[in-house]
Amino acid sequence: MKNFRTVEASPVPLHTQVRENLRERILDGSYPPHSRLPAESELGSIFGVSRITVRQALGDLQREGIIFRIPGKGTFVSRPKAYQELGHLEGFAQAMARMGHDIRNVVISHRLVEASAQVAERMQAGAGDTVSEIKRIRHLDDEPVSLEITYLPQDIGERLRSEDLERRDIFAILEQGYGIPLGHADIRIDAILADRTLAATLRVDEGAALLRLERLTHTSSGKPLDFEYLYFRGDAFQYRLRVARHAPIS
Amino acid sequence: MKNFRTVEASPVPLHTQVRENLRERILDGSYPPHSRLPAESELGSIFGVSRITVRQALGDLQREGIIFRIPGKGTFVSRPKAYQELGHLEGFAQAMARMGHDIRNVVISHRLVEASAQVAERMQAGAGDTVSEIKRIRHLDDEPVSLEITYLPQDIGERLRSEDLERRDIFAILEQGYGIPLGHADIRIDAILADRTLAATLRVDEGAALLRLERLTHTSSGKPLDFEYLYFRGDAFQYRLRVARHAPIS
Repeated sequence: MKNFRTVEASPVPLHTQVRENLRERILDGSYPPHSRLPAESELGSIFGVSRITVRQALGDLQREGIIFRIPGKGTFVSRPKAYQELGHLEGFAQAMARMGHDIRNVVISHRLVEASAQVAERMQAGAGDTVSEIKRIRHLDDEPVSLEITYLPQDIGERLRSEDLERRDIFAILEQGYGIPLGHADIRIDAILADRTLAATLRVDEGAALLRLERLTHTSSGKPLDFEYLYFRGDAFQYRLRVARHAPIS
Repeated sequence: MKNFRTVEASPVPLHTQVRENLRERILDGSYPPHSRLPAESELGSIFGVSRITVRQALGDLQREGIIFRIPGKGTFVSRPKAYQELGHLEGFAQAMARMGHDIRNVVISHRLVEASAQVAERMQAGAGDTVSEIKRIRHLDDEPVSLEITYLPQDIGERLRSEDLERRDIFAILEQGYGIPLGHADIRIDAILADRTLAATLRVDEGAALLRLERLTHTSSGKPLDFEYLYFRGDAFQYRLRVARHAPIS
């Protein structure tokens, strides 16, 4: 890009030097993934700079996602994140397996429940109607990466009891096993803090950052079928997506 | 959906009753947005149930995003979240204005910086090359909702100094003002905790959950042009997206 020029005359700010130095040490493995960085005061001594300068450098790296903080615990190096393309609807196991990851789902509960007001509204059921609820922890290369809570009509949920939910995506079973072609999904994405239950389930600290999705998947004829809450560890997972500025002419 | 049936005989678990009762009080305004809920022990007394039951009910509501917790501070009612469709590339101001929101951008800095290793790599520049950096806080109906840090080639960044960045999207200025048609953007989404700087900027507590995006927007000829870090308040904002199970036949 021809408009960039090197500013060799300009002095590099101290916090930038500290930031890039820390980045190199993280990239070269001196501080491996999930290791704890030295405390701010200690980093100040190592680099011979003030704590404010250290804090600026760490803030920059955190905002880039290279390190993450747990209040009261310290600053840790992020793992290279697993990611999934969000642009089309694909089961997690299928997407991750294609990228060479080992996937295992642990079913932690599979039961009939009364639909909460929100579940009922999204599934176009009555509040208090019985629905099937399946809670699974997705393990990526033997580490828990997400909790998925799936709601389905009772008959389909019961039928799924005889399936290999440890290895197979529900999407694949619905389409290939039951002949129910799927259409579009409506997804909502935000961020929350792990409460005690989510923290224990995903083996993170209470108050860790989680990426939260609600996903309502419809049949190809447009009926809502499968409603899910997905909770991904913010330190371990990323969604990726390509969007166009202008809708393709069709 | 014909397969749901009402389970009138089955007793509703206590934590479900507490959850749905709390949900009603939140929806009817007894606990308005951003108000703090009573402590777990107090809720236990109000409902005549154990603290464990209260915790289960609160956990369910948090996992739905209806309430949020700040460790050491308490549990708060979420605001109805502003949301933006992520499916095509659109400036925030344009999207929000269409939904009737009042938007104001506060430019907190606009300067030339040396590209960090990550910025340089994404923009296909050299590390240490000079790039333009613009930091803006997006205010939605007078509340800060996101911090956006934008990197552009130096000449375009300098030219933007004379534009109305308080009201206009950079995308719109690039296309309509400068005649640079935009193509696709590559987006990465994850979740992080607010550090001290982000917390002060977005007026949330340190350690609050943020939705973090990296967005690299290309020209219509496919050259990377505009690289951004976007930090959205998890309690105030949501992305929405519709995805198809099968790619349309084209």
